Amino acid sequence: MVVVMNLNVSEKQIQDVKNRLTRLGFKTHLIRGVERIVIGAIGDKKNIDTSTLEMMPGVEKVVHIMQPFKLVSREAKSDDTIIKIKNVEIGGNQVVIMAGPCAVESREQMMAAARAVKEAGARIFRGGAYKPRTSPYSFQGFEEKGLELMAEAAQQENLITITEVIDQQSAELAAQYIDILQIGTRNMQNFQLLKKVGQLKKPVLLKRGLSATIEEWLMAAEYIMAEGNYEVILCERGIRTFETYTRNTLDLTAVPVIKRLSHLPVVVDPSHATGDWKLVAPMAKGAVAVGADGLLIEVHPDPSKALCDGPQSLTPENFKNLVLELEPIAKATGRSLAV
Amino acid sequence: MVVVMNLNVSEKQIQDVKNRLTRLGFKTHLIRGVERIVIGAIGDKKNIDTSTLEMMPGVEKVVHIMQPFKLVSREAKSDDTIIKIKNVEIGGNQVVIMAGPCAVESREQMMAAARAVKEAGARIFRGGAYKPRTSPYSFQGFEEKGLELMAEAAQQENLITITEVIDQQSAELAAQYIDILQIGTRNMQNFQLLKKVGQLKKPVLLKRGLSATIEEWLMAAEYIMAEGNYEVILCERGIRTFETYTRNTLDLTAVPVIKRLSHLPVVVDPSHATGDWKLVAPMAKGAVAVGADGLLIEVHPDPSKALCDGPQSLTPENFKNLVLELEPIAKATGRSLAV
Amino acid sequence: MVVVMNLNVSEKQIQDVKNRLTRLGFKTHLIRGVERIVIGAIGDKKNIDTSTLEMMPGVEKVVHIMQPFKLVSREAKSDDTIIKIKNVEIGGNQVVIMAGPCAVESREQMMAAARAVKEAGARIFRGGAYKPRTSPYSFQGFEEKGLELMAEAAQQENLITITEVIDQQSAELAAQYIDILQIGTRNMQNFQLLKKVGQLKKPVLLKRGLSATIEEWLMAAEYIMAEGNYEVILCERGIRTFETYTRNTLDLTAVPVIKRLSHLPVVVDPSHATGDWKLVAPMAKGAVAVGADGLLIEVHPDPSKALCDGPQSLTPENFKNLVLELEPIAKATGRSLAV
Amino acid sequence: MVVVMNLNVSEKQIQDVKNRLTRLGFKTHLIRGVERIVIGAIGDKKNIDTSTLEMMPGVEKVVHIMQPFKLVSREAKSDDTIIKIKNVEIGGNQVVIMAGPCAVESREQMMAAARAVKEAGARIFRGGAYKPRTSPYSFQGFEEKGLELMAEAAQQENLITITEVIDQQSAELAAQYIDILQIGTRNMQNFQLLKKVGQLKKPVLLKRGLSATIEEWLMAAEYIMAEGNYEVILCERGIRTFETYTRNTLDLTAVPVIKRLSHLPVVVDPSHATGDWKLVAPMAKGAVAVGADGLLIEVHPDPSKALCDGPQSLTPENFKNLVLELEPIAKATGRSLAV
Repeated sequence: MVVVMNLNVSEKQIQDVKNRLTRLGFKTHLIRGVERIVIGAIGDKKNIDTSTLEMMPGVEKVVHIMQPFKLVSREAKSDDTIIKIKNVEIGGNQVVIMAGPCAVESREQMMAAARAVKEAGARIFRGGAYKPRTSPYSFQGFEEKGLELMAEAAQQENLITITEVIDQQSAELAAQYIDILQIGTRNMQNFQLLKKVGQLKKPVLLKRGLSATIEEWLMAAEYIMAEGNYEVILCERGIRTFETYTRNTLDLTAVPVIKRLSHLPVVVDPSHATGDWKLVAPMAKGAVAVGADGLLIEVHPDPSKALCDGPQSLTPENFKNLVLELEPIAKATGRSLAV
Repeated sequence: MVVVMNLNVSEKQIQDVKNRLTRLGFKTHLIRGVERIVIGAIGDKKNIDTSTLEMMPGVEKVVHIMQPFKLVSREAKSDDTIIKIKNVEIGGNQVVIMAGPCAVESREQMMAAARAVKEAGARIFRGGAYKPRTSPYSFQGFEEKGLELMAEAAQQENLITITEVIDQQSAELAAQYIDILQIGTRNMQNFQLLKKVGQLKKPVLLKRGLSATIEEWLMAAEYIMAEGNYEVILCERGIRTFETYTRNTLDLTAVPVIKRLSHLPVVVDPSHATGDWKLVAPMAKGAVAVGADGLLIEVHPDPSKALCDGPQSLTPENFKNLVLELEPIAKATGRSLAV
Repeated sequence: MVVVMNLNVSEKQIQDVKNRLTRLGFKTHLIRGVERIVIGAIGDKKNIDTSTLEMMPGVEKVVHIMQPFKLVSREAKSDDTIIKIKNVEIGGNQVVIMAGPCAVESREQMMAAARAVKEAGARIFRGGAYKPRTSPYSFQGFEEKGLELMAEAAQQENLITITEVIDQQSAELAAQYIDILQIGTRNMQNFQLLKKVGQLKKPVLLKRGLSATIEEWLMAAEYIMAEGNYEVILCERGIRTFETYTRNTLDLTAVPVIKRLSHLPVVVDPSHATGDWKLVAPMAKGAVAVGADGLLIEVHPDPSKALCDGPQSLTPENFKNLVLELEPIAKATGRSLAV
Repeated sequence: MVVVMNLNVSEKQIQDVKNRLTRLGFKTHLIRGVERIVIGAIGDKKNIDTSTLEMMPGVEKVVHIMQPFKLVSREAKSDDTIIKIKNVEIGGNQVVIMAGPCAVESREQMMAAARAVKEAGARIFRGGAYKPRTSPYSFQGFEEKGLELMAEAAQQENLITITEVIDQQSAELAAQYIDILQIGTRNMQNFQLLKKVGQLKKPVLLKRGLSATIEEWLMAAEYIMAEGNYEVILCERGIRTFETYTRNTLDLTAVPVIKRLSHLPVVVDPSHATGDWKLVAPMAKGAVAVGADGLLIEVHPDPSKALCDGPQSLTPENFKNLVLELEPIAKATGRSLAV
């Protein structure tokens, strides 16, 4: 941490800041520059809130040198985290595909969807039983009944399951039926929910918040890990920008950035990012090319009849073709598809 | 709703879309333009998810004509909603000031803060017992003990209270101690929490999400009202942009926009928007000038010792001066301060 | 400048960086922290491009302590710059109103507009002879003929004039007819044009770029001042965000921020920021309340017939009413309107 | 175009709007909905500014159905535009690599750079003779001398050349030495410059503006084409968002979106988008995977000594390795590298 002092700082003010830093446990180091005096503060004090230093007379600003995250950081653990669920590894050499409909709608739909995604090569089956919707008048999900249907369909096709949880109660329930708990974009900073899934000890897929910086996203993962749950998968799903042609702007650069900063696996959701099934295939290819560990793709047996997000869902046939096209891309980057 | 068809749409495709619209309960109206055929769909169908129409062959896009909100809209209720709590009215002719520290820290701090804000002219006392923090290692609040201290301090000074709630449990507890429940920016789309405070029948202050559009914000208010709670106060607190000099970008234009779209009161939080106490005074004045119904301002007896957000907190003295400066601005807009 | 070294940096790498810094003219200062070694670099070297330091082996990042601007900064000149044009002062105690139509359309329109804005209390007359338009098929302005008409109308009403210039040629021409040259938002980083108006020695109004940070905006002003022209007026006119309800998001906080960082006057354009005449009045009041030195407002004798930007133009009557409402706001902030 | 009327519109107001539309050359079509009356306006009127319709009494808003661009649109020309320069085709089946240093610095540097990029497989040589820099105190380029050195180096290695132009004069000069004229991100809406390169009849590479929507970007291309120059290459180079970890956010989804909306070729610049050479390789692979027609990559013989943008430049060796890695990606998408 570097404390930059004002142009006309007094010696008394400098001394006060040094004293405060010493009391907080830092060693201090004064540098008298040409235009500014700065005080270097040395110490491993990630848990100390130093924002009030900026309030002290004579202080212009405080510049942080270190990243605020610990457990998620590549420095804390240099080798990649590989999360094993049954016979699938996420974060290893294979690219894993998670697919399925936006929402659980019926037993038939789930069975058809599970069969279709299994056939095409997905290993993980997604489906929503709790749906956070912008409008209170939109379909809100089948809740526990949906979890049951999902588990049943997955078991028949020998698929691993993933579903979104939206509060502490749904997290507890889902943990009884489902293999991976998903935190949606709107709940990325729902810290009570993060703590809850941190305690549940099930693998968690953490979507990036709609306007979350990479640092905030990693801090949200830190919340889960700080509770003792180290199986966190990060999921890039588009951020909010001024561009209106696509629903969100898919930030694929986040993938190599995360790989540098953290040891956690990172997957990409091109369906929610674009909101348009015609853009899913190219962006899925891009995601694999930049090094994503997996994909989360919406597939619906009949998208035009879906209860939510139909426009971004692939038909089983389109999905099958996409998987075929992804294989050579994965190979070109030295990996393979987990099919 | 207007359905725009593709350049080379077939008569069969047009008929299919018309049939689907008819089944959904719309009357249809075909317009053959020079380059495009569009189908107007007539009907009051806010609860129908029409996104799958975009999936139908021959459809280029669907353009919505109507706003998606109902209960919050100015069309549903043309006169301003005025929320009365004890002897204070929010949304009426008086500008109401809510002030207090970021977090409840101790009995002494709360008593000192309550006295100071009361003296300066605030009618509503804020303080945080549950603190959603970006880092799991930051101070997380005193929880129920904090609610008690807050209620005690407020009672002594005859102040109305407001505090943030972060999940269903904290909402229930806070409702027993506190007058107004606040939904923070990170929970604006925590729909479970919105439903909960909708059921609790206490006035709710709903902060705008960090990157929420005005429409999404109003839809979040709609969630609360749809549960039967009509006492919702909207609070602009800055949005996320590319500008890094201020913590957020305070969108003061949202105030007159909300006034046009909705009958609900709207207040402004210049402290969180700017993150810098030196910017609080000018932005508070700006908020009153553009027509805000109130202000939410952080005041701490000793900001340099605050456990959180010290740099954006005013001292009691600075706060007192600000209130004096706000009075002529309020008068210049035909209103007065509720002091 | 602080150079942060990698976790596993070698002594050789540290020495190399120190040597490079020494060669660039800096004194160096090594701080060995708990997790990181940082090198403080001391020296007033604003003209040196230090970005290649980041390329050196062992360097993690370079943190700049100092602001990059010089001539525009409050540190370079602590008292406010006041720009005098004829009998009007911009940046002093009076709030100055600049008003007029988006585009010069005809002699009649200019005469009517000049009369109307003068009557209402504006001192400076705006009008566009060169119109940068998003579409090549939109009206592009009357060019020199427009400058002539503007000068003529202004002279008759004893008004000062301001107009946008779009390239070196239009800048030279406009300088012969017009008092203040305006750089539009799309040209804020058209550096050739900035140099040109820097040489012309006419007061310049520099609009903030659509997505320019405050720092970039001040650096654009620095370009003009570096050519020897010190009469620069900054103009906030809204930035681009995800919000679609208003055309841009007016960043009123930029006004007090600029006042802190720079000695230059700053005015606000609520017409372009909102794109909606109904929002101009509240945002103009907000601008005066936060401390703007002036306003730039579109007024058209008959907005519904305007060749451009009609929807954001006030009628003469609405403008007159607005000026009356602005007076008490200006007084409430200790200033007056220059009428 | 659809004109949506207010809730309480009068018959007189409806008639007035219909009359205005008729005078503008539209046929009108009235739809009386449950809550709103809307007027459909039929006619191919892209050149008419209809914004003043929004000013008319009784009008709530105007919704445009058609895209505003013509010549650039896929509807105007359904087959892909392929631009042939000497023996290279841009927009065809081959992915073309453009590479070279940020700035022309010396004869030796240019010769070394040209040799290196040629050897690695680039066909087009980039280099900057005119450098638009944020600070007036940064290196501004060698101007005509730079163009000469670039042409000489390219000729020796039989490379095609591309360079940025910044005003009408530099465009004219560059057209004499260089094969492709580049419009930089800050000049995307410098309409005078767009018109100039439209007249020069040299292929133009048009970078997306820092915060330009896809629609604005295509309208900028429309400016060039409207002057008769149909050889326009679009270049995605990152947009401005709230994320600060990377310099910009590379919007790779723009590639398939442009391919749908337009027939023009589109290339990607991962160097400027990320600002970090370590991120260039993954993002270059992603760009090829999503369907880009080419890449623009900064390569410098010795990045740590570059006069500008060193941190984002690849060494010749890294560049060579990247090209080898790109080949299988190109093949996996059914294309090949033009090497």
